[in-house]
Amino acid sequence: MPEIILSINAGSSSVKISVYKTPQGDSLVPIQLAEATVEGLTAPPAKLKYERGDEKIKGKELDDVNSQEDGFRYILDHLTNDQGLPELNQKEDIHFTCHRVVHGGDYPRSQIIDKETYHHIEELSDLAPLHNAPALTIVRAVADALPHAKNIAYFDSSFHNTLPDYVCTYPIDPEVAKKNKLRKYGFHGISYSFIVNAVSAYLEKPADQLNIIALHLGSGASACCIKDGKSLDTTMGLTPLAGLPGATRSGSIDPSLMFHYTHSAGKPSHASTGKLHITQAEEILNKQSGWKSLTGTTDFGKISASDRREDVLAFDIFVDRILNYVAPYFTKLDGQVDALVFAGGIGEKGSKLRQAVVRGVKCLGFALDEKRNDAAVEDVVTDISSDSARYKTLVVQTDEQLEMARGVLADKDRFVGK
Amino acid sequence: MPEIILSINAGSSSVKISVYKTPQGDSLVPIQLAEATVEGLTAPPAKLKYERGDEKIKGKELDDVNSQEDGFRYILDHLTNDQGLPELNQKEDIHFTCHRVVHGGDYPRSQIIDKETYHHIEELSDLAPLHNAPALTIVRAVADALPHAKNIAYFDSSFHNTLPDYVCTYPIDPEVAKKNKLRKYGFHGISYSFIVNAVSAYLEKPADQLNIIALHLGSGASACCIKDGKSLDTTMGLTPLAGLPGATRSGSIDPSLMFHYTHSAGKPSHASTGKLHITQAEEILNKQSGWKSLTGTTDFGKISASDRREDVLAFDIFVDRILNYVAPYFTKLDGQVDALVFAGGIGEKGSKLRQAVVRGVKCLGFALDEKRNDAAVEDVVTDISSDSARYKTLVVQTDEQLEMARGVLADKDRFVGK
Repeated sequence: MPEIILSINAGSSSVKISVYKTPQGDSLVPIQLAEATVEGLTAPPAKLKYERGDEKIKGKELDDVNSQEDGFRYILDHLTNDQGLPELNQKEDIHFTCHRVVHGGDYPRSQIIDKETYHHIEELSDLAPLHNAPALTIVRAVADALPHAKNIAYFDSSFHNTLPDYVCTYPIDPEVAKKNKLRKYGFHGISYSFIVNAVSAYLEKPADQLNIIALHLGSGASACCIKDGKSLDTTMGLTPLAGLPGATRSGSIDPSLMFHYTHSAGKPSHASTGKLHITQAEEILNKQSGWKSLTGTTDFGKISASDRREDVLAFDIFVDRILNYVAPYFTKLDGQVDALVFAGGIGEKGSKLRQAVVRGVKCLGFALDEKRNDAAVEDVVTDISSDSARYKTLVVQTDEQLEMARGVLADKDRFVGK
Repeated sequence: MPEIILSINAGSSSVKISVYKTPQGDSLVPIQLAEATVEGLTAPPAKLKYERGDEKIKGKELDDVNSQEDGFRYILDHLTNDQGLPELNQKEDIHFTCHRVVHGGDYPRSQIIDKETYHHIEELSDLAPLHNAPALTIVRAVADALPHAKNIAYFDSSFHNTLPDYVCTYPIDPEVAKKNKLRKYGFHGISYSFIVNAVSAYLEKPADQLNIIALHLGSGASACCIKDGKSLDTTMGLTPLAGLPGATRSGSIDPSLMFHYTHSAGKPSHASTGKLHITQAEEILNKQSGWKSLTGTTDFGKISASDRREDVLAFDIFVDRILNYVAPYFTKLDGQVDALVFAGGIGEKGSKLRQAVVRGVKCLGFALDEKRNDAAVEDVVTDISSDSARYKTLVVQTDEQLEMARGVLADKDRFVGK
């Protein structure tokens, strides 16, 4: 009997659930049955998006769905009531739920969520209060609704567990750093793990021999230097704020800047609660900065297509900051690079951005084929390099939901043994 | 009649004054007559170091010299009383004094210090309270003691006046940025200007055609990408804190880190005064971080020579962070690089560090000659590249004092016309 796996990704205003069944035989690739998203939780009415084979629902307005818990329960009812989904007729059919958790601290891999790990993840929320909270809300709702299922946390930070000491250590008082867990963690790791597996299959080269400069570019953006399939460096830090700018995130700036931006930098923001401590500085730098603050829109596609001065500036800033990482990652890999990879929403769709980035590292031996770069991306991996390029440039349609479900199959012994 | 120029560099615990006379004929290179330093102002008794031709004084303990003003007045008396310095018998012989000022805001070049510019520099102190204060103290003392001389401010930021918008703009609210003058300024510019002139002379190539990756590595450290003799990018930012770590400075870290380091990040430090606003975060990141916090010493030479775990880690961190800038500056110059330049105390003396940095960009075509790298640096410019290297690596003995005095000659019409 196939088992059902739910991959759950809770954002601040949405809940996305992908439904998989375990494959037959020796395959380690789960089979996707359906995907449901409840969006617009912070701008009601929330809306349902649903896909199962040919069955498609889009923009269905939902009454009384106002929170992540509501969204999860609504999707669960929808799935068990869908006659076209006989594998999932009742909640008991669900064997595993996977939760994407941004900050996993020192956890080197996924974890079954029991009381102990739950509390540990809750503690870690202090390091990334803006990021871990939605996931924890869903974890509680799932544990209530599906007490028989195994809940597993996948951390965006785990992939970077291999960072060398000289990369993840900040040059600050080591005692304070140790006590307060201040080091570079890095994020987007579920995506980077997917990228390694996808490129490995595409190039027919073992994952543990792959050297990749990976760019995950979306409303949150980061880069990762992958050597022998493992993270050697990455742009995000203690929190997802460091490194590249994002839609509403500043990325790296002078660490003293916030104290010249506002006299209230260290005071609690209005988003703080008794449990969550968020300073005004963190609120401003995560939510009121980035290209939205420069242009008025979070839509990087619009920015790319515009020739307004502000849009051109925002575009150029993003390209410049990305280029600040591509070249050093190239030298960290001693020029032994299997591929420069673009992923994430902007990485997949931003042909103009890809063109500008690759032009910026032309002298290293990267070059695009214009036609391939301009064509719509359809496959999991698309080669957009020119035939004369010394190094490959690829676009990867990353799939964090699938990567988590795949992790369940790969680690089943560990989870079921527990 | 030759005119006397004093180049004054006031640090937090020292005052250094170089004495030059204007050359004869068309030469634009001032002739150094003497150099005097009062050190240890924060660890009394202060000590005098003096060199004039063969006359050398070292470690002479000074009574009642407790401040930068005291130090300046002591040196002034010493110079006018030195029988071996007939060009400077009385204070009236001094025509120009040059002051190194760290933060010059938007000033694109040196400025005669009148009331207006003095107040403007004072206002800028808010952006760099730890850095501008000593210079301003001396400016006042000099104006009192030498009312007839032209006082000229040289800014560490001016050289970076050519940074493109997409480099110097932070992705933050543009209105706040404009109002509070929040942008990347960059520093060490007097040194970078010296480097451009020195390399131009050495390579016999016009300064405005030179492409250089310059590393000024001392207890404060930065890198600069110089294209056609102008700054195209640099590592320091709004303040000298951003970019590379230093002896007691963290360099770039996750901008949210300080709010997880202490709950008092935004509160005034004990170093604050009614006029100077310094937060605890800025005090910690500028004064209690860097390799001193990791190893216990500010002496990078000791760290380089040691195989203690902490020292090796601090060394590796510094090399790693430097390498994060060399490669992107290489691509910004499209691989058209005249030289990679090491300067500053560590740049001049740190053969092991140079070896590690150059090894890290071997794949770009840099390589050292081991013997040349290990030999003591004697000339203003020393070529340490291997003969087979595609690109030159140079060590430059930077001289900010001379660069300021040279500026007086180059800009004399502007200053005397005023």
